[in-house]
Amino acid sequence: MHELKLTYFDVHGGRGEAARLAMRIADIPFEDVRFTFAEFGEVRKTTPLGQVPTLFVDGRQVTQCNAINRFVGKLAGLYPQDPVQALLCDEVMDALEDVGNKFVATFGMQGEALKAAREALVAGPITQYLKWTEALIGDRYFVGDSLTIVDLKVFVWTNGLNSGFFDHIPTSLVEDVAPKLAAHNRLIASLPAISAYYAG
Amino acid sequence: MHELKLTYFDVHGGRGEAARLAMRIADIPFEDVRFTFAEFGEVRKTTPLGQVPTLFVDGRQVTQCNAINRFVGKLAGLYPQDPVQALLCDEVMDALEDVGNKFVATFGMQGEALKAAREALVAGPITQYLKWTEALIGDRYFVGDSLTIVDLKVFVWTNGLNSGFFDHIPTSLVEDVAPKLAAHNRLIASLPAISAYYAG
Repeated sequence: MHELKLTYFDVHGGRGEAARLAMRIADIPFEDVRFTFAEFGEVRKTTPLGQVPTLFVDGRQVTQCNAINRFVGKLAGLYPQDPVQALLCDEVMDALEDVGNKFVATFGMQGEALKAAREALVAGPITQYLKWTEALIGDRYFVGDSLTIVDLKVFVWTNGLNSGFFDHIPTSLVEDVAPKLAAHNRLIASLPAISAYYAG
Repeated sequence: MHELKLTYFDVHGGRGEAARLAMRIADIPFEDVRFTFAEFGEVRKTTPLGQVPTLFVDGRQVTQCNAINRFVGKLAGLYPQDPVQALLCDEVMDALEDVGNKFVATFGMQGEALKAAREALVAGPITQYLKWTEALIGDRYFVGDSLTIVDLKVFVWTNGLNSGFFDHIPTSLVEDVAPKLAAHNRLIASLPAISAYYAG
């Protein structure tokens, strides 16, 4: 057993959420350190590269969300042991970082500039990545016939797009352009550990 | 044995090179498909998300270089089996993508704009990431006491910075700000399979 501490924003989403969900599903004890957006300016000074999430493993602080996701996924039994399945899991997780980076680049924009940037993302990369991701899903899950960390990462992504929290991202976008991903989102949300987490 | 085909630019560097080196070191047969920068406009239409490298595994085309690196690393015996060691390997590989993305953003710039952008990268993120990466290296290698895929990825990065190929990136930068990384570069370059590869 490792001593684990995850640091991330106090939100039900973003780059730290998949790791939180994985640990919750597998009942892995961890210290869940959360902070507000206003506090991030101070928090980032305590991180290796100015980014969150970070994971402390037995006191060593590690950065990079997908590195953390893979590690936590292994601890939780939610990462494929088969190398080809692991490759397909990693491919989607890393691609979501690419489209996520494009999205994060719009944070801080306002007014017409924000509207134009978000609409361009919806018309371009977000729709492109939604369709690409949807084409890789299996009957229910992404890899094999059971839940893995990539399902949680995709779920967090589609949750964010569906949420209405982000201006100029239509809440019907996922359903409209990638209905299998919308169904996947509902499936993951219905898992007892996930629904209990968000109900609590 | 998988049927493997790697597609990437015909250069001794960039996002496809670590996987090539790993397969060469381990004598893993693969089809090494290379193309020129001029050909990329056509090639990218045949890729999942407009990016290279891609790896065909038994006919299935996969994108995302670090996903490919991890997969090839496992095949080559160059990826840690221990989850904590794998985490540290992944952390560095993913961080190098972040600084690499900042670098790629300067491609296509010219003249004073290029100069200003590259100088800002040298003064800022590139030096920051060099120092951070250097602090994680062990006596010789990054993880444990043997070569892994992260060593190859870091080697390709420092090779690029040292090469003189990129305007406004001083060829002494790595030696000046991260001398242990410069020594690491020389160590990796001296490995028989690596030196034979570049001599050939």
